[in-house]
Amino acid sequence: MRQARLVALVNPPTSQYAANWSNPLTRADWLRGSFYTDLGRLLERGRFDMVFLADALAVPEDADGEIATTLRTGGKGAIYLDPIVGLSHIAAVTTHLGLGATVSTTFQHPFSIARSLLSLDQLSGGRAAWNIVTSTTDAEARNHGLQAIPDRAARYDRADEVVQSVIDLWEGWEPDALRLDTAGRVFADPARVHRAPERNASIPHARGPLAIPRSPQNRPVLMQAGASPRGLEFAARWAEVVFATGGSPDVHRTHRAALRERCRQLGRDPESLLYLPAIQPVLGSTGADARRRLQSLEDALDADEALVALGRLLHSRPEELDPDAPAVPLIQAHRGATGSGGFERSMLHTAQTEDLTIRELAFRQALSQFNLQPVGTPAKVADELEKLLDSGAADGFVVMPALYLTSFEDVVDGLVPELQQRGRLREEYEHTTLRANLASP
Amino acid sequence: MRQARLVALVNPPTSQYAANWSNPLTRADWLRGSFYTDLGRLLERGRFDMVFLADALAVPEDADGEIATTLRTGGKGAIYLDPIVGLSHIAAVTTHLGLGATVSTTFQHPFSIARSLLSLDQLSGGRAAWNIVTSTTDAEARNHGLQAIPDRAARYDRADEVVQSVIDLWEGWEPDALRLDTAGRVFADPARVHRAPERNASIPHARGPLAIPRSPQNRPVLMQAGASPRGLEFAARWAEVVFATGGSPDVHRTHRAALRERCRQLGRDPESLLYLPAIQPVLGSTGADARRRLQSLEDALDADEALVALGRLLHSRPEELDPDAPAVPLIQAHRGATGSGGFERSMLHTAQTEDLTIRELAFRQALSQFNLQPVGTPAKVADELEKLLDSGAADGFVVMPALYLTSFEDVVDGLVPELQQRGRLREEYEHTTLRANLASP
Repeated sequence: MRQARLVALVNPPTSQYAANWSNPLTRADWLRGSFYTDLGRLLERGRFDMVFLADALAVPEDADGEIATTLRTGGKGAIYLDPIVGLSHIAAVTTHLGLGATVSTTFQHPFSIARSLLSLDQLSGGRAAWNIVTSTTDAEARNHGLQAIPDRAARYDRADEVVQSVIDLWEGWEPDALRLDTAGRVFADPARVHRAPERNASIPHARGPLAIPRSPQNRPVLMQAGASPRGLEFAARWAEVVFATGGSPDVHRTHRAALRERCRQLGRDPESLLYLPAIQPVLGSTGADARRRLQSLEDALDADEALVALGRLLHSRPEELDPDAPAVPLIQAHRGATGSGGFERSMLHTAQTEDLTIRELAFRQALSQFNLQPVGTPAKVADELEKLLDSGAADGFVVMPALYLTSFEDVVDGLVPELQQRGRLREEYEHTTLRANLASP
Repeated sequence: MRQARLVALVNPPTSQYAANWSNPLTRADWLRGSFYTDLGRLLERGRFDMVFLADALAVPEDADGEIATTLRTGGKGAIYLDPIVGLSHIAAVTTHLGLGATVSTTFQHPFSIARSLLSLDQLSGGRAAWNIVTSTTDAEARNHGLQAIPDRAARYDRADEVVQSVIDLWEGWEPDALRLDTAGRVFADPARVHRAPERNASIPHARGPLAIPRSPQNRPVLMQAGASPRGLEFAARWAEVVFATGGSPDVHRTHRAALRERCRQLGRDPESLLYLPAIQPVLGSTGADARRRLQSLEDALDADEALVALGRLLHSRPEELDPDAPAVPLIQAHRGATGSGGFERSMLHTAQTEDLTIRELAFRQALSQFNLQPVGTPAKVADELEKLLDSGAADGFVVMPALYLTSFEDVVDGLVPELQQRGRLREEYEHTTLRANLASP
């Protein structure tokens, strides 16, 4: 019986729950270091494998290219600090927690990506991970001198090259190249430090080497969330951790099996890829308490605002948003608007299987973005999670809080002890590096 | 009588003293977070305005394009972590210390530069500074897909545009744009968040806005070290802090006066520019103790290694390095090799005024890189520093340690109390932001 991996997703002040920032139980100091240091200490107390910080490179726009809706409502993407800064901050007050940074392959030089992630990996003693994204919106392109985002195929082709280039740079120093031999006056052995191989890639070549020795965990852990066919192919090739959104256990089971099979075909051990569905648990002292908490989260959502946010997300016009009309045609009419094929498939799947109206779709989007939402006592939620683990739908979970930091506190103080008692979660960290902890039984 | 500003320069494991890494009194954990957190706490105890981390984007090469000498000897540039990572780490354990990151304008997108520095500024509560460099070597260009570094004029033209673009992004949110009005359901006021103006620049336009509100100190402090005529012009336009290398009080007086005059011509208050010469103090309990410490530093330098390092730096061949030949012709023959006109002028000035041989030049380079090196008791060194302050050569100092962290400990425990007793250094921080502290009387 394998233990569950546990990862926390954070993108303050928004979370996957739209009314997070305005809830009186939520902290509002997410622009200050104290938010990150408290977060890191809390997750380490809960023996999480890793915290990872989401990111995007522009304030999201609506169909008219306006950012007013996102800013006024505090929609997802209204605030994004550079994840490297927050994670370096967390690193200073933690000793075992993994640190995952979302970094796009589409705009930065591989040298910059490799350097900042390996620096984080070194200063944290081998705890960094790279959540690889390719960016999805024209708004992000326009912050980097481009008029439009390249299409998915072009982005993933580039991503393959960038990841290879970054790995080449990370591996430029052999593990024992740094000598620090004061008697022999040898700082490093030049024969064991190498330039990156030429690979005839279409991206600018980063010759290397980095001025940074090999990481204590060899190199940062690779993580990925793409759910399109091309995204899954990319994950099977590179990812050690897959962050999977969407609300259906069956879909997760199918995706996980397909990814593991593709790993085998590529000659990879499928055990080297961890499939982690996103969950947004709502915990309570009793079943009724948990349901009341869910009701409070729902009550705090504003119906008009949820509709406006859905319209922004789908790049649809207000006149299309008849709250009582069925949701499926709307989603189908705006395929591609969000930039994330996987997310749109989750949305469509939920709308179809539950026959949602546009109003209901907007609510679900504002509440949990169609992710799994176990509700109940720690014992009841642990039952659900065990079922997902034992049925081949998950190797662990990415916990997305509704409220900062109280949702994480509920997990750490309620759910974590329950999982530990069942032998499904570590009592203590087994190792000091992220990769070694992820590989623990 | 104005108080001195105090800034610490750190680029572990090398310092301006070549044998730092091999000295038994020097810490060797500069790849780990503990080095940075201890450093930050120490400097804050010493009421330093700021720590700044040096940087370059390639392991330095010799005339043949080889990196073996740098790596074997642990020469400057053998190790450079991303400064943003180390500074974010320090931010987590300090409350008042400024955090200066060296970031080049030549390779990264302005959007990336603006975002990471403003993120650091936010998480630290308004303590970030940007040490603006343009990069100087072909090795750095080749890590970014270019064959050669652009010439100085082109680099500075680009730097002017990049700095303007970064400032535009930093100022995209008006100071009161973030509302967090939960009752009125207004997260931010869209009318107070602006895209960057189009300026017909030659660099790719970063449209903005950043998904980050205005900094508590309005924007990160700008810092610069260029000493060429073009570098000084750039400093007069943009810099709030100038880091000045070189060993002659007269040259510092002339440069500082010229910079202040140029500020006036540009309509800037000259008091808004702080001129900080680099110093590498060697402190002792008595004059004899200090001189013995200097002697120990000199004795630990290897003569052959110093010559090899000088040859690497000047891109000269070994056969040119006759130790007993005069140094001036060698420097003149290799003008431009180091990429830094200011540094080469310091070297030439020292070699001319002191009539150095190549051996002596190599030693001085290995010892202090031609920077001011006051030697003596705290009282004697304080006398020298007061003279520099009162004669118009300095507004304060950039302290470059010979040994990590012991040289800083000598300054914090010996020199700082001496300066405080004389009323030349703050007893307590006056403000919480870097810019406000720099502007204190």
